[in-house]
Amino acid sequence: MRADGRKPVQLRPIHIDTEYLIHPEGSVLITVGDTKVICTASVEEKVPPFMRGQGKGWITAEYSMLPRATQQRNIRESAKGKITGRTMEIQRLIGRALRAVVDLEALGERTVWVDCDVIQADGGTRTASITGAFVAMTQALNKVYKEKNLGSFPVTDYLAATSVGILDNNDVVLDLNYIEDSKAQVDMNVVMTGNGEFVELQGTGEESTFSYNQLQQLLKAAEEGLMELFEMQKSVLGEEVSEHIQKVREKKEEKA
Amino acid sequence: MRADGRKPVQLRPIHIDTEYLIHPEGSVLITVGDTKVICTASVEEKVPPFMRGQGKGWITAEYSMLPRATQQRNIRESAKGKITGRTMEIQRLIGRALRAVVDLEALGERTVWVDCDVIQADGGTRTASITGAFVAMTQALNKVYKEKNLGSFPVTDYLAATSVGILDNNDVVLDLNYIEDSKAQVDMNVVMTGNGEFVELQGTGEESTFSYNQLQQLLKAAEEGLMELFEMQKSVLGEEVSEHIQKVREKKEEKA
Amino acid sequence: MRADGRKPVQLRPIHIDTEYLIHPEGSVLITVGDTKVICTASVEEKVPPFMRGQGKGWITAEYSMLPRATQQRNIRESAKGKITGRTMEIQRLIGRALRAVVDLEALGERTVWVDCDVIQADGGTRTASITGAFVAMTQALNKVYKEKNLGSFPVTDYLAATSVGILDNNDVVLDLNYIEDSKAQVDMNVVMTGNGEFVELQGTGEESTFSYNQLQQLLKAAEEGLMELFEMQKSVLGEEVSEHIQKVREKKEEKA
Amino acid sequence: MRADGRKPVQLRPIHIDTEYLIHPEGSVLITVGDTKVICTASVEEKVPPFMRGQGKGWITAEYSMLPRATQQRNIRESAKGKITGRTMEIQRLIGRALRAVVDLEALGERTVWVDCDVIQADGGTRTASITGAFVAMTQALNKVYKEKNLGSFPVTDYLAATSVGILDNNDVVLDLNYIEDSKAQVDMNVVMTGNGEFVELQGTGEESTFSYNQLQQLLKAAEEGLMELFEMQKSVLGEEVSEHIQKVREKKEEKA
Amino acid sequence: MRADGRKPVQLRPIHIDTEYLIHPEGSVLITVGDTKVICTASVEEKVPPFMRGQGKGWITAEYSMLPRATQQRNIRESAKGKITGRTMEIQRLIGRALRAVVDLEALGERTVWVDCDVIQADGGTRTASITGAFVAMTQALNKVYKEKNLGSFPVTDYLAATSVGILDNNDVVLDLNYIEDSKAQVDMNVVMTGNGEFVELQGTGEESTFSYNQLQQLLKAAEEGLMELFEMQKSVLGEEVSEHIQKVREKKEEKA
Amino acid sequence: MRADGRKPVQLRPIHIDTEYLIHPEGSVLITVGDTKVICTASVEEKVPPFMRGQGKGWITAEYSMLPRATQQRNIRESAKGKITGRTMEIQRLIGRALRAVVDLEALGERTVWVDCDVIQADGGTRTASITGAFVAMTQALNKVYKEKNLGSFPVTDYLAATSVGILDNNDVVLDLNYIEDSKAQVDMNVVMTGNGEFVELQGTGEESTFSYNQLQQLLKAAEEGLMELFEMQKSVLGEEVSEHIQKVREKKEEKA
Repeated sequence: MRADGRKPVQLRPIHIDTEYLIHPEGSVLITVGDTKVICTASVEEKVPPFMRGQGKGWITAEYSMLPRATQQRNIRESAKGKITGRTMEIQRLIGRALRAVVDLEALGERTVWVDCDVIQADGGTRTASITGAFVAMTQALNKVYKEKNLGSFPVTDYLAATSVGILDNNDVVLDLNYIEDSKAQVDMNVVMTGNGEFVELQGTGEESTFSYNQLQQLLKAAEEGLMELFEMQKSVLGEEVSEHIQKVREKKEEKA
Repeated sequence: MRADGRKPVQLRPIHIDTEYLIHPEGSVLITVGDTKVICTASVEEKVPPFMRGQGKGWITAEYSMLPRATQQRNIRESAKGKITGRTMEIQRLIGRALRAVVDLEALGERTVWVDCDVIQADGGTRTASITGAFVAMTQALNKVYKEKNLGSFPVTDYLAATSVGILDNNDVVLDLNYIEDSKAQVDMNVVMTGNGEFVELQGTGEESTFSYNQLQQLLKAAEEGLMELFEMQKSVLGEEVSEHIQKVREKKEEKA
Repeated sequence: MRADGRKPVQLRPIHIDTEYLIHPEGSVLITVGDTKVICTASVEEKVPPFMRGQGKGWITAEYSMLPRATQQRNIRESAKGKITGRTMEIQRLIGRALRAVVDLEALGERTVWVDCDVIQADGGTRTASITGAFVAMTQALNKVYKEKNLGSFPVTDYLAATSVGILDNNDVVLDLNYIEDSKAQVDMNVVMTGNGEFVELQGTGEESTFSYNQLQQLLKAAEEGLMELFEMQKSVLGEEVSEHIQKVREKKEEKA
Repeated sequence: MRADGRKPVQLRPIHIDTEYLIHPEGSVLITVGDTKVICTASVEEKVPPFMRGQGKGWITAEYSMLPRATQQRNIRESAKGKITGRTMEIQRLIGRALRAVVDLEALGERTVWVDCDVIQADGGTRTASITGAFVAMTQALNKVYKEKNLGSFPVTDYLAATSVGILDNNDVVLDLNYIEDSKAQVDMNVVMTGNGEFVELQGTGEESTFSYNQLQQLLKAAEEGLMELFEMQKSVLGEEVSEHIQKVREKKEEKA
Repeated sequence: MRADGRKPVQLRPIHIDTEYLIHPEGSVLITVGDTKVICTASVEEKVPPFMRGQGKGWITAEYSMLPRATQQRNIRESAKGKITGRTMEIQRLIGRALRAVVDLEALGERTVWVDCDVIQADGGTRTASITGAFVAMTQALNKVYKEKNLGSFPVTDYLAATSVGILDNNDVVLDLNYIEDSKAQVDMNVVMTGNGEFVELQGTGEESTFSYNQLQQLLKAAEEGLMELFEMQKSVLGEEVSEHIQKVREKKEEKA
Repeated sequence: MRADGRKPVQLRPIHIDTEYLIHPEGSVLITVGDTKVICTASVEEKVPPFMRGQGKGWITAEYSMLPRATQQRNIRESAKGKITGRTMEIQRLIGRALRAVVDLEALGERTVWVDCDVIQADGGTRTASITGAFVAMTQALNKVYKEKNLGSFPVTDYLAATSVGILDNNDVVLDLNYIEDSKAQVDMNVVMTGNGEFVELQGTGEESTFSYNQLQQLLKAAEEGLMELFEMQKSVLGEEVSEHIQKVREKKEEKA
């Protein structure tokens, strides 16, 4: 039993509110325990300079926390005049992860700007951001797909992320909250596609290390949590999206 | 009748959710029509360098918008590496306005950081910020008052803000939404205390000007709206705060 | 009687030197008591990106103080690497005020850069900047009008600004110097056109508030000062400009 | 056979020049194929503010490339005025990895600044930096250990890093050069300690994904390369360091 | 004969207005032909961190141009967020030059901030700044000398600067204006002390070079101009300062 | 005899390694005593905006030091977010000096980016940079000359730089190392062309001054050192380059 009453391999209560804001093409409020992130997807009908003229689209992500999302107030990055290394790492990760399930050619020369703004933080903000951003992005791309009559659906699979870790007592646990995270010996973020393939694997043991055996246990716990997240995404995104993705997968398999 | 069905001197539907977040000492989500702002108040047990050793406290405010709070996505100020003139003007205004109803000596050597983060914008974000920030700050200061056993309640009166303007058709209107605001000839923000005194008056006519007579009409409309806002603040903050403020006012009047 | 011997509603000695510098299209040194500001107007034959292709011009203003314009030396904003909130607020105000009396369509696709550099400060630098900048800009635009053969004179009215305030002793005074300003309960800047219409009204009471009755007294005092400033501007700008403005006004009235 | 004639699981020729510069406490030039990195370790007798008074030391790393380390010249980060996300990610990784094998309490209140400057890049600059930085840091800490008479040797194990990846043709390869890296489907960096435990595992498939089975092959290839790198580090650092580390390990095992 | 009617070795008309501003301890407006620079000296009763505890003072200089000091308007360095290389070079030169004639020990632990703000530019702004700054600084230091009862006068000699150059037609000329400067093959700035010793010599031939023989002619022309500038400085600073400097020199010679 | 055993007018041991890196068009490692600088030349087939359409090329230089090139570690300029005045002065000097021996018309519309990165510093880094950069640039331009079939060789003469100074004991010395430099009364950098003409002359005496007589001795010592540097450059660059330069000189003399 963990401090908050969960079993080692159990997610916190999760909720995904869609159409959370009126302006963006896609927007969700994702709640994972006490962690809350607003994820929006904005579609722009052009690509950044380094992508121009290739007939392909681009997905880019930004991440930020409200100053008082945390226990102690943080100085705004706009006030500091620069973005911290932590923020850069996270937003690069989110963008990279989303691009793994987007067919940039099917998207055509447009950019999706994904914004993940943490309004309340209790651990796992980057994995909640990926899981929520996938939903916001997919809803936005479903609109684009229909309005612009794209040749094929640009999202090729579901995508979710969660964290696993090894606590002080050597327990392998799923979906760490802030207190657990700050005491964990090893912390690992796993980003996976709906068909169970890895997209990103980032394991780190700052004051500690981990063995091959522990790695296997961590990955097993992550997979359990991720399967639950995919179910939630499917239910929130509905059957239409599910069918689109099914069709894209079939086409891909035929090709291979 | 206005485009959204309101009468000229009528506020949009307003809602103030308190205790919106778990970490800050005070936090609200204020909704004014489609404008939504998260206002938090964080108390720090020290003052900025220029205030040290005077036995007085300080109130400072920051303001920001999520990139997709608006119709078009805005570049984050943290990505630009600097804060725009508009943001600076607004956060200076919020801080100045709040300080007008805080007895900094009663507060003692502590700082209240007020953060106003617009998650959805439809005009009037700065006035909604002031109205909401007052509630978040007062709840935080009520906690400080009780926990630190302050000699007197540091908030001396209610404080709210609204906008008034003159539309194309010369109509004087209250609480402009974004469409009205962008077409208005004259735009005026009025910040007032619960007893009807002005704190700030900012009227501007970029492509136009206004006469003394029009000024009088604008101020009358603003006052009507503000009285309604004070009622809402009183109801949300409850009787305890109301009594504290009543006592502070009486003490002040005795002195005078 | 005030500390410097003035009556409550009396301006400080004012002087406007025109053609103060050899390079700019318009330039003045305005002296208001001990406050001295160099105002220049530079005409550029193109508009900023957001204005392109609309057939209209643009007026933009920048404001700065020499480091030792004040009692204590200030760090240069170029050395800090950023512009303070105060500077941004002031330069936005100057630009907005000037645009209120310029017919941007008559100006055509060109930009006037107005620079206000305070070389000595003793209160009222922003209002002196507006009053002086109007003269520099109008001289520059008179040259453009003649050289480029514009269809109509792009300046539609005189424009001046002054400050009024309420001192400790509740006196309403006009044109506050630095000492008065730093002790005033209420400080208000009024920008007005030659025909007595308001352009901007910014009243603020940081540690205090003001009533409707006091507002009326403040506005009356401001108007007296402004009328004197318009006379000075007329005399400095000469009859040619006066006739141009007269003609523009008549055309406008005919239209209305 | 790979394009440069290597077998799939074969490192490029590697060389570590120690005492490369005269000023730093530790310095190496590490050469991995055509990748060349100068790694220096500078010891400072104080810790950063957030570590003060804890009796513990700190290791921090910075990473940079000369503008023409690459095929195309890059703009200097000092000229841009900010550090890119990629650089931040790498320098955070290097610091975190080194701290995993340093006993910060044994180090005492001092900071080791590790600088990795890439003078020529051909893939694998971050892993070469970690492998080289470990040697420079250990030589610097050996000096500190002897000069300051530390209670125990502050380095607890060897530490090296390498990359593995999956090429277009689905081959799993070790130590990718730039051409291979830019075409790889999956790229993984593995940081390991001398006793075969993981410190960091970062696998990513931007346009692709990888299965559990492929992960196992990647980790096996990485381990082969790392074992060779540990041998090289041992030979370069010499017997004295080897004995120190042996003693630290024994003490640790006794404790456990 | 030069374009403006001067002989090759002739200065432009020069004027030094002292006590130009009311706030600074020393201030001048120096006019050299159409070049006009406001030079102020501000005394601060502490030294920068790197000078603390040495019983010595410090002189530092900053240089800037108003945006429209030149034919074309320049973007403000505060708006760019950084200082150009040209500005840095000039302010380092001014500071270094002034320190050559100040006895920093006699000055004691205080800093003189010298600000040179060019309000109109027509060539030679850096040399005019040095010549004017010397007067402003000396007046400020004369006040400090008397008010703080310094042991000896901290200024050890007069200091002035001028430019010389070689024009297209191979003429060696003194005190180049902007047009001459922009066409000159060789441009040299010479900073000299009242007793004829060099402080700085900066000769440069960007598209050209110069021989030893030409160097000798340039130095001769510079010396003629500088002697005239010293006379002007002596007359402006008056006999009191002249006697102070005379006494310092005698003491120095006795020592040697 | 100097502290390191050299005669007053003797250079330190100098070595120029060419083709030091694989990517740049030209690259050298220049060693002057313990000072080591990597100089690279990168050719870009376009010019900066201010040079476009003139049929001429451009040479620009950047200079930097590794953080631990010096006795004490320096903070990186990229971490500070800005370039120091010293760096700007040096890189402007290097670029200006190189341009003095390049025929920008012969070069055509292309830019040479010269990068000088000091990996170890012991005085004279700016002069070593110029001497090394000339070699790297000339090798790059020789390639351009042949590959692009330029009409005439774009380098018009050899170019080298050295420092001279006056020590405490009044000795005039050549090529100062760091210890000598930090104690010197006068420090002078001389940049010269192969035919003995001056390109730059920068003499400075921060706490001291120098007479005309001393200037003559300094220049004589510099010339001796420079003649030796030209021999070294000729030998490293080889006969082909020597013939190209000879031909360019002859053409120039014919013209004159």
